[in-house]
Amino acid sequence: MIDAVVGIDIGGTFTKYGLVDKKGQCLRVNLIKTDQFVDFNEFSEHLHKEIQGQCDSLSEEINIKGIGVGAPNGNYYRGTIEHAPNLKWKGIVPFVEKFKKYFPDLPVVLTNDANAAAIGEMVYGGAKNMKNFVVITLGTGLGSAFVVDGNLVYGQDGFAGELGHVNVEQNGRICTCGNKGCLETYVSATGIKRTLFNILCTRFEKSDLRNVSFSELTSEMIYEAATKGDAIAREAFEITGEILGVKLSDVVAITNPEAIFILGGLAKAGEFIFKPTQLSMEKNIFPVFRGTVKILPSQLKGENAAVLGAGALAWKEWNIQSKRYAPGQTS
Amino acid sequence: MIDAVVGIDIGGTFTKYGLVDKKGQCLRVNLIKTDQFVDFNEFSEHLHKEIQGQCDSLSEEINIKGIGVGAPNGNYYRGTIEHAPNLKWKGIVPFVEKFKKYFPDLPVVLTNDANAAAIGEMVYGGAKNMKNFVVITLGTGLGSAFVVDGNLVYGQDGFAGELGHVNVEQNGRICTCGNKGCLETYVSATGIKRTLFNILCTRFEKSDLRNVSFSELTSEMIYEAATKGDAIAREAFEITGEILGVKLSDVVAITNPEAIFILGGLAKAGEFIFKPTQLSMEKNIFPVFRGTVKILPSQLKGENAAVLGAGALAWKEWNIQSKRYAPGQTS
Repeated sequence: MIDAVVGIDIGGTFTKYGLVDKKGQCLRVNLIKTDQFVDFNEFSEHLHKEIQGQCDSLSEEINIKGIGVGAPNGNYYRGTIEHAPNLKWKGIVPFVEKFKKYFPDLPVVLTNDANAAAIGEMVYGGAKNMKNFVVITLGTGLGSAFVVDGNLVYGQDGFAGELGHVNVEQNGRICTCGNKGCLETYVSATGIKRTLFNILCTRFEKSDLRNVSFSELTSEMIYEAATKGDAIAREAFEITGEILGVKLSDVVAITNPEAIFILGGLAKAGEFIFKPTQLSMEKNIFPVFRGTVKILPSQLKGENAAVLGAGALAWKEWNIQSKRYAPGQTS
Repeated sequence: MIDAVVGIDIGGTFTKYGLVDKKGQCLRVNLIKTDQFVDFNEFSEHLHKEIQGQCDSLSEEINIKGIGVGAPNGNYYRGTIEHAPNLKWKGIVPFVEKFKKYFPDLPVVLTNDANAAAIGEMVYGGAKNMKNFVVITLGTGLGSAFVVDGNLVYGQDGFAGELGHVNVEQNGRICTCGNKGCLETYVSATGIKRTLFNILCTRFEKSDLRNVSFSELTSEMIYEAATKGDAIAREAFEITGEILGVKLSDVVAITNPEAIFILGGLAKAGEFIFKPTQLSMEKNIFPVFRGTVKILPSQLKGENAAVLGAGALAWKEWNIQSKRYAPGQTS
């Protein structure tokens, strides 16, 4: 008999799920396509069956202790996914309420994907001994999570950590949120694409990327061009890191963290993004903090980091709430 | 016999101290001139005698439970005042260590002035029922304190809350910290003075303030001119509020507070500063937070607010540490 939790990472394209034991081993990870389910009820029914099947397929008996979910725009307090632009389910999806119907005897806890990543880093990754740190996820947008004195900052309504929407420039680039000049319009996979196109139109240097349309261009292509010495691609990373560094110096001034972890697709560009970010942060930082804050990549290696994070959330929650959630009791 | 704590508010010019009972009544408040003591040891000896004298002068016997101190650049973890630009004691002053020699049987706790104000607001003021709020103090500089889930954010080294040093403009106004473009160079009593002079040099409108030198000008004079309809003075408040509002929208995106309290000299300008700040914050805020965050003045009325804050700090600390600090035991 193995004690485990279910970790679920909901993304716009894929949902990954797997069993995570207390030591942070993923016993098995599978995935389903999120975007083939226009109806959330069909999605949750399918996911439930898949999880059951996964448990049944293991040779050892599994004692499931809880379910942890990381989702875009996930609200920890309400257990909801709210107005997630990258998901097909519009409005407010009462995930925890609906999912508990399939697992009435288990605690189900949900938070947003950046928060889940932060808990993963805290429980199994590079933040194991840290009490104050920040996680930045650079994907389609920019997500963030703040850990203060060992606890996630959720704020009054559970929506803290929207660093992607601090202002870089008044009347700057239009953001999906409706505002202008938000950080994620500059610093994200989409942001660096916009920056690259801005450089293309202001400069003359040759670049293979001049032959790629805006629709075709990906941040991976910019990274590949940069590794080949493309000056415009490198400039795009420089500018992206400079802007991120200024905002990280603000984050340090407010929360005085020990470290900032940078995760997600764009973080795979390594020194191309880490170096200008670090330089810009140190240049702009309040002097008392100079040299005190580490900028680090995730220490959760591999494809299963987000599932591990969701699993860590469940383990952490179950420990905290073990008195409330006696077996068979769900509220 | 009355139980009370000593609240001490150290400022660049005056130090106020007084006895504060558990209900937040100041039994008596006196002051000494901070800046007449170039040597910290002389200051602390004098302050100790004054406090003893204050206790002896009361008709009822006082049972002092602890001492709370709010000081510029005060470090809660270390009990030190570190490199405070407005104090004559340079370097790192080990306040708590030295002051405990005079009061060996009492717990002494110190934090920075904005943190003390936040605890005052939480214990006796407008944040009594709040778990997530921010305090901004607008004096010579801009101080701030962040309360998350009922606790002050101190950060890794005890220096969290330096909102005065987030960046407004790359290569902007020179700041006392050595950086350029920090928020407090625009939003503070000094900041609005600099803004007013900038307006004077770019515009033609008549203003009585054209007859005042930079050295003579105070934020109170700008406020008085604004009340009399001076267009340039009003514009200075508009600009100050607009910049503060943008940064408060960033603060909301990161910490999702219920309210933001604006305190200090410049807050006395009332609607002149509150209105443009509120408008700008709402304009720039991440949509999910629109209309959810109150901007409020302090509910600690009168001259003794800072002493009350320091007293509240001691009460809070003593409650938390009552097991550690048994009577007669000091460490």
